[in-house]
Amino acid sequence: MPKNAAVSPSHRQAFASRRRDPATKREAVLQTAAQLFLEKSYSRTSLNDVAERLHITKPALYHYFHNKEEILLECYRLGTGLIGDILNEIAAQGGTGLQKVEAFIYSYSNVMTINFGRCVMRLDDGDLSSEALAEVRSYKRKIDRRLRYFIQEGIEDGSIAPCGVKIATFAIAGAVNWICKWYEPSGALSPEEIATQFARTLTQGLAARRRPNGPRLVKQTE
Amino acid sequence: MPKNAAVSPSHRQAFASRRRDPATKREAVLQTAAQLFLEKSYSRTSLNDVAERLHITKPALYHYFHNKEEILLECYRLGTGLIGDILNEIAAQGGTGLQKVEAFIYSYSNVMTINFGRCVMRLDDGDLSSEALAEVRSYKRKIDRRLRYFIQEGIEDGSIAPCGVKIATFAIAGAVNWICKWYEPSGALSPEEIATQFARTLTQGLAARRRPNGPRLVKQTE
Repeated sequence: MPKNAAVSPSHRQAFASRRRDPATKREAVLQTAAQLFLEKSYSRTSLNDVAERLHITKPALYHYFHNKEEILLECYRLGTGLIGDILNEIAAQGGTGLQKVEAFIYSYSNVMTINFGRCVMRLDDGDLSSEALAEVRSYKRKIDRRLRYFIQEGIEDGSIAPCGVKIATFAIAGAVNWICKWYEPSGALSPEEIATQFARTLTQGLAARRRPNGPRLVKQTE
Repeated sequence: MPKNAAVSPSHRQAFASRRRDPATKREAVLQTAAQLFLEKSYSRTSLNDVAERLHITKPALYHYFHNKEEILLECYRLGTGLIGDILNEIAAQGGTGLQKVEAFIYSYSNVMTINFGRCVMRLDDGDLSSEALAEVRSYKRKIDRRLRYFIQEGIEDGSIAPCGVKIATFAIAGAVNWICKWYEPSGALSPEEIATQFARTLTQGLAARRRPNGPRLVKQTE
C-alpha cells in the first residue's frame, strides 16, 4: 500500500540536482501539485504556484506538463492505476463476493488517504474541460462496474443478501470517496484504522444474515 | 420534503414583474446561482453569469448579494436549516437510536437531491475564504455531532451494535453527501428510491444482530 505522500523538500531537490532523471522530476511536479490542490483547491492553484513551490521556472515546468488539467489527469491516471491493480489482485485471490467487496473497500480507503486520491476526489467535476471530464468519467465507471460485479457475485454465491446493486455500489463508493473531504494526515485516525473499520462497517449491511460466522475482514498485504 | 428545484423561467419572471416582493427575487437569485454552480462549478460561475441568466443588471443583483460567496453561504444556511428542522423533528418523534439514524439518512438523502444541497456539497472547500470556511465547518460539525449522538443513543438502547461511532458517522455522512456527485434529476433513480434504499442499506450494518424484527424504516411525512 502506498505511503501517504507529503510534499517534502526532496521534491525541490529533484530539480536542484542535474543528475536526477526526468521521471523523478515529473513525479516531484505531480506530488507538489497534488499538495497545492489540497491546500488551496484545484481552481485556485496556478502553474505559477507549482513552479514557485519547486523553485523552478515556468518554462522548466512546461517541459513536463503544458497545463494544470494535464497534471490533474495524471493524478487521476495514477490513482486509477493503483485501484485497477488492487482490483486485479482481489479478483485473482478468489473468495466470496463479500470478501472481495471487503478487500476492495479496505484498499480503496487507503488510496483515498494519499494525496493523489484526495486531490482528485475533492474536485468539482465542473472545473474540468469536457474532454477531461469524459476521461475521468470513464475511469469512475470502470471502478464502479467492478464493485457492482463483486456485489452481484456475492448475491449469487449467497454471501451477500439480495439488494439493489446500483444503490449499494453508490453508497459504498460514496462513503469511501468522501474520506478525501475529512481525512487529515495529522488527525486522530490513521489510514489503517479508517480502512479496517470502513471495510468492516460497510460490509456488515451487505452480509447475508444466516452465515455461520460474521463477515471476515480480508486483509491486504501491505 | 422540498421538491427538486429546477431553474425555470419563473425565476426570470420574479424580476420581470415590479410587484414581486424582495424575498421572491432573492430566492430567484439563489435558485439560479445554485443551478449555475451545478452546471459549470462554483469557481467557474461569475456574478455576471447569474445576472445574465436572470436578465437583470449586475447592480440589480448587488442589491441582494455582494459577492458569489455570500450566495453560496446562503445556500448552505438554507440546506443546514432544512436539515436542522428535520433533526429536531426526528428527535421529537422518539424511537430507538437506530430508527432515528434511519429517519436521518432518509431525510438527509432527500436534501442531497435538491439543488441547494447538491451545489454546496460538490464544492471543494478550498475554494472558500477562511471566514466562509469557518462558518461552513461549524454547520457540518453540528450535523455530524447530532448523527453521532443518534448512533450513540442506539448503542445505549441496544438497537445498534457497538461500533466506532466516529467512523460510522463519517461512513454514513459520506455515502449520503456523495449523492450530490452522481444524482441526476433526469436519471433512473428517483429521490424517493434513493432515500428509501439508502436508509435501509446504510443502517443494516449498524443494527444489533439479535433483534426480533429487521430494521424498520421510519418514513418522514412529505
